[in-house]
Amino acid sequence: MILTLSCPDRHGIVAAVSGFLMQRDANISDAQQFGDAVSGTFFMRVVFEPADGDAIEAVRQAFAPLAERFEMDWTLRGPEPRRVMILTSKFDHCLADLLYRWRIDELPMTVTAIVSNHPRDLIGHVDLGDLPFHHLPLRDSGDAAAKAAQEAELLRLIEATGTELVVLARYMQVLSDDLAGRLAGRCINIHHSFLPGFKGARPYHQAHARGVKVIGATAHYVTADLDEGPIIEQDVERISHRDTPQDLIRRGRDIERRVLARAVRRHLEDRVLLHGAKTVVFED
Amino acid sequence: MILTLSCPDRHGIVAAVSGFLMQRDANISDAQQFGDAVSGTFFMRVVFEPADGDAIEAVRQAFAPLAERFEMDWTLRGPEPRRVMILTSKFDHCLADLLYRWRIDELPMTVTAIVSNHPRDLIGHVDLGDLPFHHLPLRDSGDAAAKAAQEAELLRLIEATGTELVVLARYMQVLSDDLAGRLAGRCINIHHSFLPGFKGARPYHQAHARGVKVIGATAHYVTADLDEGPIIEQDVERISHRDTPQDLIRRGRDIERRVLARAVRRHLEDRVLLHGAKTVVFED
Amino acid sequence: MILTLSCPDRHGIVAAVSGFLMQRDANISDAQQFGDAVSGTFFMRVVFEPADGDAIEAVRQAFAPLAERFEMDWTLRGPEPRRVMILTSKFDHCLADLLYRWRIDELPMTVTAIVSNHPRDLIGHVDLGDLPFHHLPLRDSGDAAAKAAQEAELLRLIEATGTELVVLARYMQVLSDDLAGRLAGRCINIHHSFLPGFKGARPYHQAHARGVKVIGATAHYVTADLDEGPIIEQDVERISHRDTPQDLIRRGRDIERRVLARAVRRHLEDRVLLHGAKTVVFED
Amino acid sequence: MILTLSCPDRHGIVAAVSGFLMQRDANISDAQQFGDAVSGTFFMRVVFEPADGDAIEAVRQAFAPLAERFEMDWTLRGPEPRRVMILTSKFDHCLADLLYRWRIDELPMTVTAIVSNHPRDLIGHVDLGDLPFHHLPLRDSGDAAAKAAQEAELLRLIEATGTELVVLARYMQVLSDDLAGRLAGRCINIHHSFLPGFKGARPYHQAHARGVKVIGATAHYVTADLDEGPIIEQDVERISHRDTPQDLIRRGRDIERRVLARAVRRHLEDRVLLHGAKTVVFED
Repeated sequence: MILTLSCPDRHGIVAAVSGFLMQRDANISDAQQFGDAVSGTFFMRVVFEPADGDAIEAVRQAFAPLAERFEMDWTLRGPEPRRVMILTSKFDHCLADLLYRWRIDELPMTVTAIVSNHPRDLIGHVDLGDLPFHHLPLRDSGDAAAKAAQEAELLRLIEATGTELVVLARYMQVLSDDLAGRLAGRCINIHHSFLPGFKGARPYHQAHARGVKVIGATAHYVTADLDEGPIIEQDVERISHRDTPQDLIRRGRDIERRVLARAVRRHLEDRVLLHGAKTVVFED
Repeated sequence: MILTLSCPDRHGIVAAVSGFLMQRDANISDAQQFGDAVSGTFFMRVVFEPADGDAIEAVRQAFAPLAERFEMDWTLRGPEPRRVMILTSKFDHCLADLLYRWRIDELPMTVTAIVSNHPRDLIGHVDLGDLPFHHLPLRDSGDAAAKAAQEAELLRLIEATGTELVVLARYMQVLSDDLAGRLAGRCINIHHSFLPGFKGARPYHQAHARGVKVIGATAHYVTADLDEGPIIEQDVERISHRDTPQDLIRRGRDIERRVLARAVRRHLEDRVLLHGAKTVVFED
Repeated sequence: MILTLSCPDRHGIVAAVSGFLMQRDANISDAQQFGDAVSGTFFMRVVFEPADGDAIEAVRQAFAPLAERFEMDWTLRGPEPRRVMILTSKFDHCLADLLYRWRIDELPMTVTAIVSNHPRDLIGHVDLGDLPFHHLPLRDSGDAAAKAAQEAELLRLIEATGTELVVLARYMQVLSDDLAGRLAGRCINIHHSFLPGFKGARPYHQAHARGVKVIGATAHYVTADLDEGPIIEQDVERISHRDTPQDLIRRGRDIERRVLARAVRRHLEDRVLLHGAKTVVFED
Repeated sequence: MILTLSCPDRHGIVAAVSGFLMQRDANISDAQQFGDAVSGTFFMRVVFEPADGDAIEAVRQAFAPLAERFEMDWTLRGPEPRRVMILTSKFDHCLADLLYRWRIDELPMTVTAIVSNHPRDLIGHVDLGDLPFHHLPLRDSGDAAAKAAQEAELLRLIEATGTELVVLARYMQVLSDDLAGRLAGRCINIHHSFLPGFKGARPYHQAHARGVKVIGATAHYVTADLDEGPIIEQDVERISHRDTPQDLIRRGRDIERRVLARAVRRHLEDRVLLHGAKTVVFED
């Protein structure tokens, strides 16, 4: 089981949590913690093996009073994989990468559906196997009614499939504020620039025009404020004056897919805790 | 000798330049070139040993007609080190680094002066040796007349010392548009962020507030447009939620000094060619 | 067309080559060169558009006397993609990566065959599509006769398919000296360590036992001397004491696949020139 | 105060330690832990503010029974800076870097002495200020008696100055097994290669001959087994075929000094715990 928590920092949190687990005869296999001095907030992630026969609901109930005492935001999860929906476009390199990692058991998840606003035959380079595919077309993203209808369908699908995490794997559509709000903390986007540089459209063309010497990609939780969500992971690569915008797009694919995969993996392992507009990421 | 040139790209440039040098019995030890397809501009840097007794002025005169035919922007320089002035503040890590590299012969330059708007005893961690130090105070950077007077003094010093390159090694003052214009292409600044992210003041505090996972530094030529000059070099380092703004400042010092040193070295070796608002940097 | 050459360094090579191309009305779109001062060897790669109707055989014939005069090792190739065979094992992440890049036109190659010493159904995570698959079993790699027979079959296949480049994408078999010799300069292996550290078997376990803080991967041409062939590309990633050997294997997959893909791409674009036991790699 | 400990991993360690500190009214400001599943060893580092008036000796005494119960190797230190001796040669870039960082308060240490087997005027690029300098010449490192005498003098100096950490900042001399043994766990060396590659002499020349594409440096505790001590930190930089051995030496200086500085800093902050032939490094 994995326990994550954040709360106002004060004496005795670690003693209380570790004492609780010890009394329950649980075996802690990993624990990480962080106290943010500026905000006075404490964060903790504990992986433990419960005593034989100790059910997750029983642990939850027993922990609740302690959590209340320390005013904790907390989650406790068992080993079952999370249910994940992947949204994509014809740029399918992140999708291909996530599916390959899932197939070799690198990502502990159940894929509930692949969704695209393009028809299936435009996902040309990826073997979807038996995964459910849904085509939710959106011809004119400026047509508010059409967009609302498409998002309603998307939300229905998220709920019907019991999806816990939505991954925007180069989905190329901006979610409405309303949908972004409903998916707060459980929708990860990959932006193809090193934020906060080059927000918005065609970041590689922006980077080429500015003449930067390094490009990057950023995985973040989606919020109503475009490209301003809490950052989970970033990475970069060195480029040169020889690189055209097309070269940047090619090089960028490698950065995007590894940054997104790391962010998804860390989310799936409950390593990412929200801290206002930022994140605490307990490294693996 | 080092020849650099840029010109409209067309047939026969390399053949003409290499033919010219061959006929003069010069020995090419290094040559790099780049044709930018978008702008149709060609760039070249050639290092060569002239034939015995061939003087730089003779080579220049002989090359001029060829240069005119191809409409070249070009420079031809001999082996003498460039004359460099370093401007600094009480943040002296870049100054210390440049001076150490100069002392162990890593930077082929003659230091014409160290200039600061703080008195010498505030440069507390660096051995200036016999280098000329000039205190050009500027108490209130909002006082336009005072600033103009200080910059006039600075410009006089640049001219009197025959300074060819001005390095803003965490100088912490913004040059006026006028001075920036006069030093176009020969004044390098280090900005303590990964541009275009976090322009302006206190970039590490901005980075901490935004929750980025990587920080960086940028060396660029100074232009009137603050933090928008042609980028010469950038580098980054990974950070985590554990880092306070003070930690970022500490980590950043390492990035700043190596980025600035690389940019200065490349400029001194005529490896940096301007390409509009960007640069072509022939790697060493 | 792409011309690559190496020869003893002396006056006039660039002038001769660029003059030759100018006279033939060819349009140089890229040229890189390197003179190695230690060995006195000169290397060059020129990409050019020949004049209308100028056939590759005609260019070859015309260039031959010049090449002879300068004692050049040289190649001249047209735009047709190279024919590539990929050898793999049940560790199929490099295979999956190469095929994906090929499908999105990142790698200019024709895949002649996929070969494995495991049956096709063990390549479990990759869509091979219509690509020819050959199962060349080798149960006991210590049985010299069996190995010789398997390699004979492999060589026959290489020749029958007109394969120009053999990629060992985690093939997990050591080629015999004889076969390595026959494939000199056209067989690329990915070794899952940062050579020369951790040669031989189970390098991630070796790295874990030694307690290194960074791991890497190395793509190199295969030679009779195991793990000693000319290195084309290397890359690394930071690890920590938290990583088990299994974690290193997982992290290493990402390094391996990008290092191998870069090496293959550079070979396919004639960017890699042999220089004794080393390589000259003209960067893209 | 900083508490570090390692012990056999079993239930209740964290609960016991955190309970101990809570009962003493200490305020934990940072805690990191790691359980190594392979060896069954548990490691922990806790930074805490003791209750008013709680002296370090009192805490030590009170903690001892708990430590004994869990069979801990442990240390408890107060805030006073460690006493550090730096050994160097005419390659003084690491020395210069350490002293600069110390002067700007990046390294919490007291420098007890600078020692070199060259006379002081060969330390040509560093301002030693008032720091005690000792010239311990060793003309012929093959002369066992001379070496023993020199090391005896060195050891006497280490003891007389109360030195707690010895830093070999490119000292260029191999310590005898005996001295290495006496300084076990408190002597850090910087080796100018990415170990285990290129052990021994002239690693940059080895790297150039092998044609690697990345070079590195390694900071490790000194043991009798040369270049085999527990690794504290490593870092690398990309190189190319253009780099001569001299270029590698120049690029390497930057890697060496940052790797050594990080290792020293982490040691000074009690972040490095020995784990057999390896280290656990709690990141800052």
